[in-house]
Amino acid sequence: MSPTRAGIGKTTVSIGLSMAFNRMGLKSALALREPSMGPCFGMKGGAAGGGYAQVLPMEKINLHFTGDMHAITSANNLIAALLDNYIFRHQGQPNQLKTVLWRRVIDMNDRALRYVVTGLGDGNGVARESGFDITPASEIMAILCLASNMDDLRRRLENILLGVTCEGKPFYMRDLGGVGALLVLLQDAINPNLVQTVEHTGAFIHGGPFANIAHGCNSIIATKMAMSHSDYVVTEAGFGADLGAEKFLDIKCRIARIRPKLTVLVVTTKGLAEAGMANMDRHIENLRAMGQTVVVTMNRFGDDTDDDVSRVRNHCCDLGVGFAANEAFFHGGEGCRELAELCIKTIEKQPSGEIQYVYDLNDSVEQKVEKLARKVYRAGRVEFSSKARKAMAQISEWGLSDLPLCMAKTQYSFSDDPKAVGAPEGFTFTVRDFVVSAGAGMIVAVSGDILRMPGLPLHPQSEKIDIVDGIIEGLA
Amino acid sequence: MSPTRAGIGKTTVSIGLSMAFNRMGLKSALALREPSMGPCFGMKGGAAGGGYAQVLPMEKINLHFTGDMHAITSANNLIAALLDNYIFRHQGQPNQLKTVLWRRVIDMNDRALRYVVTGLGDGNGVARESGFDITPASEIMAILCLASNMDDLRRRLENILLGVTCEGKPFYMRDLGGVGALLVLLQDAINPNLVQTVEHTGAFIHGGPFANIAHGCNSIIATKMAMSHSDYVVTEAGFGADLGAEKFLDIKCRIARIRPKLTVLVVTTKGLAEAGMANMDRHIENLRAMGQTVVVTMNRFGDDTDDDVSRVRNHCCDLGVGFAANEAFFHGGEGCRELAELCIKTIEKQPSGEIQYVYDLNDSVEQKVEKLARKVYRAGRVEFSSKARKAMAQISEWGLSDLPLCMAKTQYSFSDDPKAVGAPEGFTFTVRDFVVSAGAGMIVAVSGDILRMPGLPLHPQSEKIDIVDGIIEGLA
Amino acid sequence: MSPTRAGIGKTTVSIGLSMAFNRMGLKSALALREPSMGPCFGMKGGAAGGGYAQVLPMEKINLHFTGDMHAITSANNLIAALLDNYIFRHQGQPNQLKTVLWRRVIDMNDRALRYVVTGLGDGNGVARESGFDITPASEIMAILCLASNMDDLRRRLENILLGVTCEGKPFYMRDLGGVGALLVLLQDAINPNLVQTVEHTGAFIHGGPFANIAHGCNSIIATKMAMSHSDYVVTEAGFGADLGAEKFLDIKCRIARIRPKLTVLVVTTKGLAEAGMANMDRHIENLRAMGQTVVVTMNRFGDDTDDDVSRVRNHCCDLGVGFAANEAFFHGGEGCRELAELCIKTIEKQPSGEIQYVYDLNDSVEQKVEKLARKVYRAGRVEFSSKARKAMAQISEWGLSDLPLCMAKTQYSFSDDPKAVGAPEGFTFTVRDFVVSAGAGMIVAVSGDILRMPGLPLHPQSEKIDIVDGIIEGLA
Amino acid sequence: MSPTRAGIGKTTVSIGLSMAFNRMGLKSALALREPSMGPCFGMKGGAAGGGYAQVLPMEKINLHFTGDMHAITSANNLIAALLDNYIFRHQGQPNQLKTVLWRRVIDMNDRALRYVVTGLGDGNGVARESGFDITPASEIMAILCLASNMDDLRRRLENILLGVTCEGKPFYMRDLGGVGALLVLLQDAINPNLVQTVEHTGAFIHGGPFANIAHGCNSIIATKMAMSHSDYVVTEAGFGADLGAEKFLDIKCRIARIRPKLTVLVVTTKGLAEAGMANMDRHIENLRAMGQTVVVTMNRFGDDTDDDVSRVRNHCCDLGVGFAANEAFFHGGEGCRELAELCIKTIEKQPSGEIQYVYDLNDSVEQKVEKLARKVYRAGRVEFSSKARKAMAQISEWGLSDLPLCMAKTQYSFSDDPKAVGAPEGFTFTVRDFVVSAGAGMIVAVSGDILRMPGLPLHPQSEKIDIVDGIIEGLA
Repeated sequence: MSPTRAGIGKTTVSIGLSMAFNRMGLKSALALREPSMGPCFGMKGGAAGGGYAQVLPMEKINLHFTGDMHAITSANNLIAALLDNYIFRHQGQPNQLKTVLWRRVIDMNDRALRYVVTGLGDGNGVARESGFDITPASEIMAILCLASNMDDLRRRLENILLGVTCEGKPFYMRDLGGVGALLVLLQDAINPNLVQTVEHTGAFIHGGPFANIAHGCNSIIATKMAMSHSDYVVTEAGFGADLGAEKFLDIKCRIARIRPKLTVLVVTTKGLAEAGMANMDRHIENLRAMGQTVVVTMNRFGDDTDDDVSRVRNHCCDLGVGFAANEAFFHGGEGCRELAELCIKTIEKQPSGEIQYVYDLNDSVEQKVEKLARKVYRAGRVEFSSKARKAMAQISEWGLSDLPLCMAKTQYSFSDDPKAVGAPEGFTFTVRDFVVSAGAGMIVAVSGDILRMPGLPLHPQSEKIDIVDGIIEGLA
Repeated sequence: MSPTRAGIGKTTVSIGLSMAFNRMGLKSALALREPSMGPCFGMKGGAAGGGYAQVLPMEKINLHFTGDMHAITSANNLIAALLDNYIFRHQGQPNQLKTVLWRRVIDMNDRALRYVVTGLGDGNGVARESGFDITPASEIMAILCLASNMDDLRRRLENILLGVTCEGKPFYMRDLGGVGALLVLLQDAINPNLVQTVEHTGAFIHGGPFANIAHGCNSIIATKMAMSHSDYVVTEAGFGADLGAEKFLDIKCRIARIRPKLTVLVVTTKGLAEAGMANMDRHIENLRAMGQTVVVTMNRFGDDTDDDVSRVRNHCCDLGVGFAANEAFFHGGEGCRELAELCIKTIEKQPSGEIQYVYDLNDSVEQKVEKLARKVYRAGRVEFSSKARKAMAQISEWGLSDLPLCMAKTQYSFSDDPKAVGAPEGFTFTVRDFVVSAGAGMIVAVSGDILRMPGLPLHPQSEKIDIVDGIIEGLA
Repeated sequence: MSPTRAGIGKTTVSIGLSMAFNRMGLKSALALREPSMGPCFGMKGGAAGGGYAQVLPMEKINLHFTGDMHAITSANNLIAALLDNYIFRHQGQPNQLKTVLWRRVIDMNDRALRYVVTGLGDGNGVARESGFDITPASEIMAILCLASNMDDLRRRLENILLGVTCEGKPFYMRDLGGVGALLVLLQDAINPNLVQTVEHTGAFIHGGPFANIAHGCNSIIATKMAMSHSDYVVTEAGFGADLGAEKFLDIKCRIARIRPKLTVLVVTTKGLAEAGMANMDRHIENLRAMGQTVVVTMNRFGDDTDDDVSRVRNHCCDLGVGFAANEAFFHGGEGCRELAELCIKTIEKQPSGEIQYVYDLNDSVEQKVEKLARKVYRAGRVEFSSKARKAMAQISEWGLSDLPLCMAKTQYSFSDDPKAVGAPEGFTFTVRDFVVSAGAGMIVAVSGDILRMPGLPLHPQSEKIDIVDGIIEGLA
Repeated sequence: MSPTRAGIGKTTVSIGLSMAFNRMGLKSALALREPSMGPCFGMKGGAAGGGYAQVLPMEKINLHFTGDMHAITSANNLIAALLDNYIFRHQGQPNQLKTVLWRRVIDMNDRALRYVVTGLGDGNGVARESGFDITPASEIMAILCLASNMDDLRRRLENILLGVTCEGKPFYMRDLGGVGALLVLLQDAINPNLVQTVEHTGAFIHGGPFANIAHGCNSIIATKMAMSHSDYVVTEAGFGADLGAEKFLDIKCRIARIRPKLTVLVVTTKGLAEAGMANMDRHIENLRAMGQTVVVTMNRFGDDTDDDVSRVRNHCCDLGVGFAANEAFFHGGEGCRELAELCIKTIEKQPSGEIQYVYDLNDSVEQKVEKLARKVYRAGRVEFSSKARKAMAQISEWGLSDLPLCMAKTQYSFSDDPKAVGAPEGFTFTVRDFVVSAGAGMIVAVSGDILRMPGLPLHPQSEKIDIVDGIIEGLA
């Protein structure tokens, strides 16, 4: 469901569920996203599950891990360095860039880098406005998650749109040159990382695009690898089902040609208190419309009462939706037994059917946005800024309209207003810009005030992180 | 000796020499610097030795390797993010920063980042001028190389000078907070990396500060680790002996309380052709004045004639300096046998004595510069810019005058003018600024136009790097 | 009526009408705005009337004239220099500025100055984002137009809001100091300039704020001076009556405690062809609702047919509104005789009554905007951006809610969308920000994408301006 | 002589001397510079003479006066606006600018504008580094002072060098277009302004370039006009004779083909106390070497004793140089009677001869600098930065070497170090850059840290300026 600030616990439940399958003697594996380091030093909390439902070693996974994030950062920034070198050395020559679309990335919450002027001073290249995003927002990350192999990776890297020339032509990575060097930088990062949960369930952790600004799913390679090693693969898709599940189905599954057997919707008492039962209902309805069979699980926290659980159970029963509470955090796989049984039973009796994509690939970009906003978000009207309209015209001119759509939107609401919680409808949904990820193969529509680079709070979590007697503290 | 643009081959000779010791049945290990990734994509050439005198796996060592560079980049930039967050959130409060001394780093040749304005736009913090250096220029790198253990690392990190407050007080990392998080980021990076040469000689590769802008030696921890595992440790110190050997002795050996038994001066026909025999003589004279026993080796290239070798051999003979040619590149350890024998014999008969430091730690900063410039560089006069004079006054006021001096200077000349090759003397040597590396524990004096961030050439090497049939090309 | 890109000819008609009064033996004078120099070099056309209805000397009036614009520019930029000096010298002290609201001005169309970073480099003050507006957008211009005398000028200058301190307090010009120097700079500029028309009618030309971004009326001092010298003062108020007349009545007349006897609405065939008769009707209706008696004049151009005139005349007749065509451009005062007679007759029989202000001064800012947008523009809904909402809260907190409202809006439409010509209604009107002109004594509401600094076209008019045989060409 | 911070009183003495001539029944007029407004609000003091030797109305002359400064500012900034418009609209086309040399100006002490980034934001042109100088540093000011008539003005404006194209070609104002508009803006400013002193002596006040960064003389047109109206024209040339007289002779007199009959060297007790008699002697010696007959006048202040005067008188007597004290400040023309008589007598008996230019116009730029630095400043050695060397090569390539040299140098010393007072010799004189004023017709050599834009002090004079009972205070 739509998440609270503290999150809903999707990763924890995924881990618990997979462990429960294994406890039941079934072969199950996880396919999860790898965390970005930046947020670990900002707001509290890593992204390796919690309590008795964790992947290990948590400290490595949350920080450098196997270096995938660093490799992506390096590849992204090598492009930037090559591009600024190209601009510097092609002044007054043909195929000069009028507009630069590529930004640098860094795996750090650093608001001061959102908007910068680079190239100042004598001999330091050409001054221009630019900025840094956080690494999970890099198109390289999206490419890594969607590539099927090294050849496909090369093709996607070549297709990255870097800018527009003074003659109005798109300027791609293949025009700049240097794709080989990117491949060299990414040759280890493209391989999934295999770790274990606290109960020794295998977890393929690979790729970590943010779900509000990117497609929010772990890599296709890792997912398929998990599928080839087990019977029940549990994966998660970031944030509420309007973002996570929609992109999982419309983008990842469509590209990977896979389809899920079952969708588990995770809710919490706090989430339901804030957003209301109507929010959950809307997500269920949306998922069913996309052809998915849904079961609901309530991720129990310490102060949830049995009444809280019964209320949701009865409500789901009324809707004809399977329900099971879980206590993954407190009891690991054991705490998910009821949920696991529900899943197995449901998959047997009533698995999900063909995916009903929200839009067709040959819809125009405007149609795709309209369908998504009306059918899934329930907007009454869609508005495009004049900048967005210009971008759509260019996308069409460049023959890129057939790409799937990736909506950058607040996760806190179905609408583009983070304060409109619950199940709003009839609102005006505004797209203010598009970002063309021609390499990843998607058109990112930007709505609202989504930031691609987080900041640090007054008291960053880094103040509490330390090594005491050889043990890392504060990196929960 | 003073290097040519193509280098003199110090790493190759070091590797060859160590392998020769092992071939002779002696226990020898290498203690080398790890390469920075950035230059690999710029001018041709990695830094893992060459020909039959290499460390393996070259591609890994030249790129991500074990992630040390990435960890240092992350730690450096976490400080920057915390610092900008501090500035943003302390406007109008006491202990506000008037001057910010900390810069970001990236392991990439990216001239456009040398001088930037950050924090632009609404809500993105406080606009200010800043810039990025290449990672080997980070003080974190110097700290890592000079720290003796985790406790010392913590102490040094706490002592990093980040800026000056509006009240004129120094603002250290310990005032900002967050050292624990840095330690967590660096806890693996502080451990040396052990690899092998093509002939299976062990090489501890760890730490890679640039020698023109930093102290240019591999880490003390790795050096001591190599010493505890073998009888003959071969290490290198970056660029000509006026920079490399001087810093090795005055900074690294002084801090680590170690001393070398012998110094091997590497020369090439090309180097001697460009800089003259007088350049070699000057280096020998300088090294002897610092208490070192010197032998000279000529690193032979394909088109060197025997006459070329004889001429140098005779010249060294006249000076009473041992000489041996080597063919490390072409014949590995075997190609260094004569050199190895010369080394062993010289160490037995006439090892280096106590190090004669160029300056005393309790000399004033001005005295240190004067002694170094006059005794080693042979300047006739030392000038300080008004900025440099102000910096010296502050260093003294803050009680940091006792730190050793680290000269940032061109490697192509004894002077601060890269075109004054050979053995110039009587010139005016100008120090235009000082950078206080209070964490690393040294005062960096900046002379000439030394850049802390390289640029890319018109045709970067990255254009030639690729993976062909699974094999990396272009990363020699 | 709502203007076309070429304008409607308000100044020309004003001049013609005043000359016609004088031809009839009545005492009449003009009170006009002085042109800004910047646009003269951009799009074609000065602002000193046209054809046989001009004020002279046109070249002086359009350029430096008596230096009023330069004095305003100087005063505005002296504040900026003092303010940046204050910021530079108060770092780390109380009453530091967190937000700077004051911008520089220049009387030039210079888009490159809209958004700049100033204070870069060593010793050049504190780096910050800023920008330049064109001089007529300066609050000093508005102050000059609304001040009743030197004491009032001083008071208004002292009240200019320059920024917000780190403690959240407003920082006024009186807090900065230096108002005396501003007075010295403005002491001649506050005096109106008296020139003549081609028919020797006196014209007080003084003050020239833009009507889309400022209140768009000439100075109160000049208007009152003209009133004390003649029986019929003709003045103009910039752009369509939704901007010009509304601000003239709600701001200028309210502050000056004057009221017009008659409002002449100027229309053209081209304007009616583009915007439709409904546009004229809406303006008439609005003016009547503000208590004004209206007559309509058609400003005839060369290719207007008598049918064109009859159609409008009949339409006005149906509405019970007086109508007279004019040929001021071609025949000067003579060409306005019919209009003058209509005016005299109407003023005798049915003069305007008390002004019915669109809003009360003690309405909240939000109420003022709502009333203006609904009653005059006919918006269906008013939206405030979150920035605008915050600004309203601050205005209220600082006790400035009682000031009149000055809407910055496109002149091409009743709405905030320049393309919505005619008489749109029911639209959403969006206020995206407020600018507090506490010195001028008004709250500027910013809607749409109004620019405060114009740019130059591909072929600026300056290319055609020259002195040939002592005669200025190209400055029509 | 070399001035103190408070100045030496050249203007006051010039005014007193001219008035004394008139008191003696001779026809005399003044040809003076017009003050810049900016400094009036910074450090105390206008530039209209002092005490009983002033030109009136002081307040007007010190501020807007007849608008010449504003016209120059406007013309300078119109070029900048046209140029940025050109850059914006010629991206990707031939004759694109790689280097922009033109800067904006403002008549205000505003350090924050020294170094700015302009053109930021969407649609605001091309981002680039730029800056503002104070108006007297504008090349337009130099052009106005050196132009002989409107045709010459047009020619000089067309020759302004604005930048360098990507093809390496110089880009002049004539390539940009719009000179006609500049002429229109300057058509009144080119005419001299005639005012009176307190004793009704006519003063042609026109043109005011700064003497440290520009050629520092009033306009040729005004000087010639004064010469055509009187028998004894007194003019001044800014700062010490090493700057003022040298540029007056080598630039202004050479271009105007005029020559002075006598040079009056002004000294003060304070100046002699600070710089020593040797400083005066050096100036006398230099002036004589340039073919000038010299007399010395001591500008007496309140606390000067007769002994002070006698000492200088005797010293001059020894040198064979005429001497007369003056009390222009306290007694106006009467206070300069002795000086006037000395001047008349000297002119009769021993007028100056042909000007002995310091360099020939067909000397290379390097030779010109060498001759000036060695002969006038008495440098032992001249150094050129690499930037300066590159600039000299370009100047030569563009065929501009024949222009006279205008040295930007501190006025406080013969050398480039403001602290080296007295009569230093044998020092190294460093030229760090050249600015080509191809329109004005001179090559500006930049030495030391000369700023082209002053800043404001902690307590700007503007704090004390006010109008009290209609009288301006604080603008002395």
